[in-house]
Amino acid sequence: MAATRIHHINFLVRDLDAACGRFERLLGVEAFERIDHPPRGSTIARTRVGESWLVLVCPEDPESVPGRHLAEHGEGFFLLSVGSDSLPADAEVRSDIDDWAVADVGEAWGAVLQLTSDPDGQARGS
Amino acid sequence: MAATRIHHINFLVRDLDAACGRFERLLGVEAFERIDHPPRGSTIARTRVGESWLVLVCPEDPESVPGRHLAEHGEGFFLLSVGSDSLPADAEVRSDIDDWAVADVGEAWGAVLQLTSDPDGQARGS
Repeated sequence: MAATRIHHINFLVRDLDAACGRFERLLGVEAFERIDHPPRGSTIARTRVGESWLVLVCPEDPESVPGRHLAEHGEGFFLLSVGSDSLPADAEVRSDIDDWAVADVGEAWGAVLQLTSDPDGQARGS
Repeated sequence: MAATRIHHINFLVRDLDAACGRFERLLGVEAFERIDHPPRGSTIARTRVGESWLVLVCPEDPESVPGRHLAEHGEGFFLLSVGSDSLPADAEVRSDIDDWAVADVGEAWGAVLQLTSDPDGQARGS
């Protein structure tokens, strides 16, 4: 199992427009694209930064996983997902946006550590 | 001003060895290298993930910037630094490890948003 890149990092936000504008203005990232993501009960905004994605997650459903995390921890950094050439054999794998195959593998001080299957080790666009 | 990559993301930790072992085991990243970094009153461990660095910062001096952040916020995600082809004209620029030229440009829910000068837009090794 080898890490290939930072695949995406996620922040939980309450106000998606405000957060997108702030990241775009301060960091010079490209305009975020919005994606409805019913499986996670959330609206998502993401932008590409090199071979990585910067993702803002705005929970619409307070009972969703992100919604419960927001209620417990508040806004801010939520998840680090590392691209990996394989996923652990015992991992519970689910599909994420763009059919990313992801597995949550642990936590780090309240945030989720995750692997995203990235078998060819290449950065891929949307 | 354009973002070129996620240059580094930093976590504050109290036990550097434990945190390195955990990230290596869970995420499959290469072994961390340790660096004494007196300007920030800290010992640092970093590992390359694709074009990015994953950085663990263990404050030795409680009065350093990371030391004060640790006392206020506890362990965990601390800083996102995006590689940028230029730095804002009014930014206060300082040197970081490897003579990275960095400018703190704002904050996001308790974490620092930073730009690292990356004029050629290329990932560079240590």
